[in-house]
Amino acid sequence: MTNPPASPAAAGLLSLVGAGPGARDLLTLRAMQRLQQADTVFYDRLVDDEVLELAPPSARRVFVGKHVGAHSWPQDKINAVIVAEALKGRRVVRLKSGDPGIFGRVAEELAAARAAGIEAEVVPGVTAACAAAAANGISLTERGVSDTLVLTTARCRAGDPLPDCTRHAKPGTTMVFYMAVRQADRLRDGLLGQGMPPTAPVTVAVDVSKPGARTLFCDLAALPQTLAQHGITGVATIIVTYPKAQTQRLAAVP
Amino acid sequence: MTNPPASPAAAGLLSLVGAGPGARDLLTLRAMQRLQQADTVFYDRLVDDEVLELAPPSARRVFVGKHVGAHSWPQDKINAVIVAEALKGRRVVRLKSGDPGIFGRVAEELAAARAAGIEAEVVPGVTAACAAAAANGISLTERGVSDTLVLTTARCRAGDPLPDCTRHAKPGTTMVFYMAVRQADRLRDGLLGQGMPPTAPVTVAVDVSKPGARTLFCDLAALPQTLAQHGITGVATIIVTYPKAQTQRLAAVP
Repeated sequence: MTNPPASPAAAGLLSLVGAGPGARDLLTLRAMQRLQQADTVFYDRLVDDEVLELAPPSARRVFVGKHVGAHSWPQDKINAVIVAEALKGRRVVRLKSGDPGIFGRVAEELAAARAAGIEAEVVPGVTAACAAAAANGISLTERGVSDTLVLTTARCRAGDPLPDCTRHAKPGTTMVFYMAVRQADRLRDGLLGQGMPPTAPVTVAVDVSKPGARTLFCDLAALPQTLAQHGITGVATIIVTYPKAQTQRLAAVP
Repeated sequence: MTNPPASPAAAGLLSLVGAGPGARDLLTLRAMQRLQQADTVFYDRLVDDEVLELAPPSARRVFVGKHVGAHSWPQDKINAVIVAEALKGRRVVRLKSGDPGIFGRVAEELAAARAAGIEAEVVPGVTAACAAAAANGISLTERGVSDTLVLTTARCRAGDPLPDCTRHAKPGTTMVFYMAVRQADRLRDGLLGQGMPPTAPVTVAVDVSKPGARTLFCDLAALPQTLAQHGITGVATIIVTYPKAQTQRLAAVP
């Protein structure tokens, strides 16, 4: 005889929860509730302590640290431990920085949960681009300037003459680059190569909504130097707008 | 003698607050707090009653209704009334569906506040794309499938052979179209014209997180018929993925 498969009812609940950009008050009410009811919380270094404190004192807190440029926990190991914990019948919260659906590896964790017969849900969150724009009083779309928002990463492969992440650089578009600081040189070169004006405005939001948050403004040509001058090497969101008006002006001059 | 300009300290506070997709528990804690402390709330029809109920009973609630295809309140009138209210020294909340920075006309309202010397802030929110993906257990980016997320609208101008909103249709990209239901025919044609496979998967999320929320799945070729068959005419988020794998397959066959 074989054991019956674990039924969803007996197998706990896996909640993949968007923690937002960092500040506790930028969690959603649903995220707060899931944390308050959690038996176990899996988190990584992008999540602030004051967010973790929302879980009951008795809850297990498990660090599955993973950050730009380092992979201390491979994804398949994370999948295995969160599923194993839910299979014990526990309410498991897997905290994700920002929104789980944007660079959050949520497809892999949901697939693992489904394969194990575990009930799973995703709680959306405020993604870094929105938090960075809000903190600086700028808009990610704007009439007559930008009608489209592109969220991408600058994980360019060495040797690409034109980083693939710049393929969406087109007039009327705001691009937000996640995890891109270390690629700033190649990012600038790629965007200029796509025809973006060197004067295109750039906003660099560092540690948005966290203590020590700061913002730099520069033009595209000066992006790498600006990051270097201010010693920015870690988590930052780079917002670049390729305005519509520029093209119209260019088009008017044959 | 002229009157002195209103000082920020005396002129109240204007908060442009992201209300998220609709459900009250998808508000952020900061949004809830701003509502609870509001003297006046400006809202439109995309915001649910249970969100408005968070404001004190004594708060003024002002409908500045505006929805797809109709403009009962022109933007400059909205700018004028919210600024006038803040100039009376009140704490004014301007509720925006989703995130204020994405198709929220926030630049215009902030500019009006600045011109009047009013202190203003933006409280970010969960945008419709993130809520729709979370509700359906899908990811907006996915390793090996899509490394970029594009948020745009399908407000195409009549006569455009290729709707401008399809300019970002490229392999490895997930596109989310806001306010696009009425343009579904031209949207499909434009995307196919960009080389997207007719079998590209499409998710249509209707009234996400609200009572009566539902989701349709189809392939790109069947999008207009699917919307028509289900009588979808109002607020829906259309998610289309142009997967990487497809191109690689195409590229492998000379």
